[in-house]
Amino acid sequence: MTVEIWFEFASTYSYLTVSRAEAACEAAGVAIEWKPFLLGPVFHAKGLSTSPFVLDPIKGAYMWRDVERRAARFGLPFQRPDIFPANGLNAARIMTATLDQPWCGEFARAVFQAQFVRGEDISQFETLAAALQACGVEPEPWLDQAQSDAVKATLRQRTETAQTRGLFGAPSFLVQGELFWGDDRLEDAIAWARAHPS
Amino acid sequence: MTVEIWFEFASTYSYLTVSRAEAACEAAGVAIEWKPFLLGPVFHAKGLSTSPFVLDPIKGAYMWRDVERRAARFGLPFQRPDIFPANGLNAARIMTATLDQPWCGEFARAVFQAQFVRGEDISQFETLAAALQACGVEPEPWLDQAQSDAVKATLRQRTETAQTRGLFGAPSFLVQGELFWGDDRLEDAIAWARAHPS
Repeated sequence: MTVEIWFEFASTYSYLTVSRAEAACEAAGVAIEWKPFLLGPVFHAKGLSTSPFVLDPIKGAYMWRDVERRAARFGLPFQRPDIFPANGLNAARIMTATLDQPWCGEFARAVFQAQFVRGEDISQFETLAAALQACGVEPEPWLDQAQSDAVKATLRQRTETAQTRGLFGAPSFLVQGELFWGDDRLEDAIAWARAHPS
Repeated sequence: MTVEIWFEFASTYSYLTVSRAEAACEAAGVAIEWKPFLLGPVFHAKGLSTSPFVLDPIKGAYMWRDVERRAARFGLPFQRPDIFPANGLNAARIMTATLDQPWCGEFARAVFQAQFVRGEDISQFETLAAALQACGVEPEPWLDQAQSDAVKATLRQRTETAQTRGLFGAPSFLVQGELFWGDDRLEDAIAWARAHPS
């Protein structure tokens, strides 16, 4: 039983999901397949120049308050960063390069904490190097590999796949073709995986 | 302790909320203040000509599947109607006229069932008359009162209030100035009301 977790490093609600998914899935006996992708191309395909939360300030104001409340409910620290949306390209490439490493979920959480707890700029290699170091690994080889043509192509391909599979936001969950959108659907996605073992 | 439930009769997620709110609030010892309003003017103010679920077919396709799944989870029958979004103006006016009646929640549920269970057109007076009859009252006086200038003005005013209070979708919940959006926030709104008694 597996839940595909599609997320974008710049996404506030992805912070909530990535922070709590491993514990929730482990408790339910469900495996995670991490699917880092980029929302930018998905928004651009709709004619949006940036995040809908920026384009619609009323909805944006609600989102910040909602995320703050949800984070408190999950016991997660949260602080609105100065930069939003961040450029999550480098983080997504590193995550793509490290997907077969047992610490890749830890890396993702470290990046989200840098952004939404300490307000750091996750487009910067020093922020990402620190997140790798927090996982107990030497950053340089992973930073290098993240810039390889193979990793770049894999991330581009995954972002295209997101669009062909009907994803329009993050986080999203895919369970045997069934799509769930939003951090508040994580439990539904896990329940679906348990109810529909492959 | 009171939760204001702002809803639009054409809204699929409002169907879920209106169907389960009275039981959920009663179980929690929280009172409901029904706030029927119109989403049309809210969307128009953003430059949208109709529901975002129609304007964005990818998001729309997701919504229909999501509502179907959520309805099943709550044990609610659900069938996608031919008309979407319906014109909820007459239903909202009748609800506005009946807000001090103990059966007004029952009326709202009857209208939503006509629309999302039997696929009826809720803009039609015969559909709305049948919903009033289901509450055990004579329809005519209420249908007449719903067309009064006072009721029309009250509904218009409430829709304007929705906008000034930062509402951008339905259902939404207001608890002492705290805004929650979406059927999946009903439990959060109730919990907020209990944690913050006035």
